[in-house]
Amino acid sequence: MPARRPMLAVIGSGGALDPAIAAAAEALGQLAIEAGFRLVSGGRDGVMEAASRGARAASSWREGDVIGILPGYERAQANPFVDVVIPTGLGIARNVVVVASADVVVAIAGGSGTLSEIAIAWQLGKPVIGIDLGLGQPGGWAERAAGTAIDDRRGDQVRRARSPAEAVELAVAAIGEGRRRHP
Amino acid sequence: MPARRPMLAVIGSGGALDPAIAAAAEALGQLAIEAGFRLVSGGRDGVMEAASRGARAASSWREGDVIGILPGYERAQANPFVDVVIPTGLGIARNVVVVASADVVVAIAGGSGTLSEIAIAWQLGKPVIGIDLGLGQPGGWAERAAGTAIDDRRGDQVRRARSPAEAVELAVAAIGEGRRRHP
Amino acid sequence: MPARRPMLAVIGSGGALDPAIAAAAEALGQLAIEAGFRLVSGGRDGVMEAASRGARAASSWREGDVIGILPGYERAQANPFVDVVIPTGLGIARNVVVVASADVVVAIAGGSGTLSEIAIAWQLGKPVIGIDLGLGQPGGWAERAAGTAIDDRRGDQVRRARSPAEAVELAVAAIGEGRRRHP
Amino acid sequence: MPARRPMLAVIGSGGALDPAIAAAAEALGQLAIEAGFRLVSGGRDGVMEAASRGARAASSWREGDVIGILPGYERAQANPFVDVVIPTGLGIARNVVVVASADVVVAIAGGSGTLSEIAIAWQLGKPVIGIDLGLGQPGGWAERAAGTAIDDRRGDQVRRARSPAEAVELAVAAIGEGRRRHP
Repeated sequence: MPARRPMLAVIGSGGALDPAIAAAAEALGQLAIEAGFRLVSGGRDGVMEAASRGARAASSWREGDVIGILPGYERAQANPFVDVVIPTGLGIARNVVVVASADVVVAIAGGSGTLSEIAIAWQLGKPVIGIDLGLGQPGGWAERAAGTAIDDRRGDQVRRARSPAEAVELAVAAIGEGRRRHP
Repeated sequence: MPARRPMLAVIGSGGALDPAIAAAAEALGQLAIEAGFRLVSGGRDGVMEAASRGARAASSWREGDVIGILPGYERAQANPFVDVVIPTGLGIARNVVVVASADVVVAIAGGSGTLSEIAIAWQLGKPVIGIDLGLGQPGGWAERAAGTAIDDRRGDQVRRARSPAEAVELAVAAIGEGRRRHP
Repeated sequence: MPARRPMLAVIGSGGALDPAIAAAAEALGQLAIEAGFRLVSGGRDGVMEAASRGARAASSWREGDVIGILPGYERAQANPFVDVVIPTGLGIARNVVVVASADVVVAIAGGSGTLSEIAIAWQLGKPVIGIDLGLGQPGGWAERAAGTAIDDRRGDQVRRARSPAEAVELAVAAIGEGRRRHP
Repeated sequence: MPARRPMLAVIGSGGALDPAIAAAAEALGQLAIEAGFRLVSGGRDGVMEAASRGARAASSWREGDVIGILPGYERAQANPFVDVVIPTGLGIARNVVVVASADVVVAIAGGSGTLSEIAIAWQLGKPVIGIDLGLGQPGGWAERAAGTAIDDRRGDQVRRARSPAEAVELAVAAIGEGRRRHP
C-alpha cells in the first residue's frame, strides 16, 4: 500500500485579499501540491480560494488533491477549485476539523478565525507555520504569531516563513520530524 | 473546471462481519468507484474497511478516491485502504459529517450507529439506499429500513437494493435526479 | 455537596402537534420536574416547547430546571419556557449533545430527527423510553420504537410507557439502576 | 415570564494554578453569581473548578447556577461544584459550545485553549474581558490579550479588568449594552 500523502492545511483571511497575500496563498497552494502534500482548507473564499487555485495550477495536481471542509451543509459554498467538498453543518466548529485533518498547518494573514485555528493546532500538537511577509497589519495573525510560542506546553514556536517556498520547506521538514518521532 | 465527482457514503456495521455482508461491502466499494463516485465512510473497520478495500481494487481507483472521517484525532485509527484521512475528534458527532459530506448514502447491515446515520441522511434530504440481501437479523438496519419511509416529510423511501450492483445503479440514478432538480 | 439532579431529555416532533401529543409532552415535563429531574431538550418548538411549558408549571419548578440546547447561535431561537439556553451553532450535530447530556431519554412522537436521537442514545448506553399512546402514525418513532431493541449490543429495549406518568416512573427506575451499577 | 439570567463564561488555565490566579477565579465565580449571572465553563479543573467553587460559595447561589460543558461523555469528568453537567463527546470542539452559550466571556490566565476561546468569542461577537493582575507570564493569554483588538472587524477590544470585581462590573455593563442594541 503506498504511504498516504500528508495533508497541509492552509488557514487565513476570508474575503477580499491584499494582492501580496493573494499571491502568497496561491504560491503556497501550488508549492504544497508540488511537494507532495494534499491541501485542505475551510473551502471558502480569500486565502482558502487563492491557495486552492494555486493547488490546481500545480504541474502535479491530480483531482482529489484539494479538500474543503465547509461550515454549512451546502456543497455550493465551496470555491470552484476544491475537488473534495466536505460539508459539515458545524458552523465555526468546522475549524476544529480543518486543523484536526492536517499534518501541518500554514497560516497566511487572518483575523480571529485564523487565530483560533492557530491556537487549536497548537493544542493538538500540530506543527504550525506563519507566513511573515513583513506587511504589518495586513499580515494578520500569521505574521503576529510567527516566531512566538502560543504557550509553554510545547518547546517549539509558530515557525516563521518569509515566503511560501520557505513555508513549504518548513512543512516538509516538520513532517519528516513527525515521521522520525512516530515511525 | 471538471465537474466534481459525486460522493457516495457507505455506512454499516463495524467489527467482524458476516461473510455475505463483507462481500457485499467490498463489491459496493469497487462498483462505486467504477461508476465514478468517490467513497466516503467513517474510516474504521467492518463495512467501512471492506468497502474501502473494494474501492482500492477498482480498475479505475486513483489515490484520493477513498475518504475516511474518523471520530478521534489519531490518523492511525483509519483502516489501511483510506487515502484521505479526516480525523475530527468529534466522537459520535462525526457521523453527521460522514452523512453531510455525501451526495448519496448506502447502508449495509448496521446497528444503532447506522440507524442514526440513515435518520440523519433522511433529515438532510440525501437519497438513502439500503442493501437488502434477505439475510434477516444480520442484515441489520439497512435491511430493516429498505423500502420504508423514515417519516412523511419526504415523498420517497429508503430505496431497497437487492445487490451492491443495484445499489450503485440506484445511486447513479439518484444523483441524476438531484442534478435535474439543482442543475 | 448535594447530589446532582439527574437530567431527563425529551425528544420528539417539532412544529405543530396533535393535541394528544402536546398534552402528553406537557404532562411529561411537569412530572419530570416533580420527580426531581432537570429537563433538557433541543429548546425549540413542538414537543420541546410543550414539555418545557409543562416543566415550568410544575409545583417544584425552580429557575434553572429547563435547559435548551439549540442548533444555531441565536438565543432567541429558544422557546420562552427554557431557563438555560445553550446555543451551539452545531446544526444537526447538536442532537448528539442533547442526548449526551441526559441520564435518561424519553421520546414522544417524532420523525427522522427523533429516530436519530433514539439511535444515538442507544449507542451511548442511555436508558431510552418511548411513549406509546396507541395513536398509530401520529405516535411517530416513539411509538414505533417502544418495546423493541435497536440492536443486540444491549440486552434491554426501548421501554414502552403508556402514559407520561409511566414514562417518569420508568425514568426514575432507570436512574436507580444506573446508580446501583455506577455508585 | 421572568427574564432569563445572563450567562457568564469563564475560560482559563486547566491544571494546577498560581495562587493569585486561583483566588481571582474563585472571586470571579462568586461575584458573577452575586451579580445575577449564571456561570458556564468547560467544567473541569484549574480556573474552571476555582470559579465554580466560588460560584457555589455565593450568598445567592442556587442549585442550577453552575454549568459545565465537558469534552467527553463522562459526567464524572466534571468538577464537584458544577450543578448542570453537559457532556458532549465533542473533544476540543466543545470549546465552541462553551463560548456560544455565553452572553459575556471572561478569561483568567490560560494557554492555547484559552486563546482559541478568546478568538472564537471575538468571532461570535461576544464581549470578551481579560483579567490582568499584572502577573506577567502566569497571567497567560487573558493578560496578553487584555486591552488589544483581536482583529479589526470589531471596533472594541478585549476589555482589561484589573480585578475580578472589575471584570464583573465590565460584564454587567456589556450585557446592558447588548440589551440596548437588541432589546
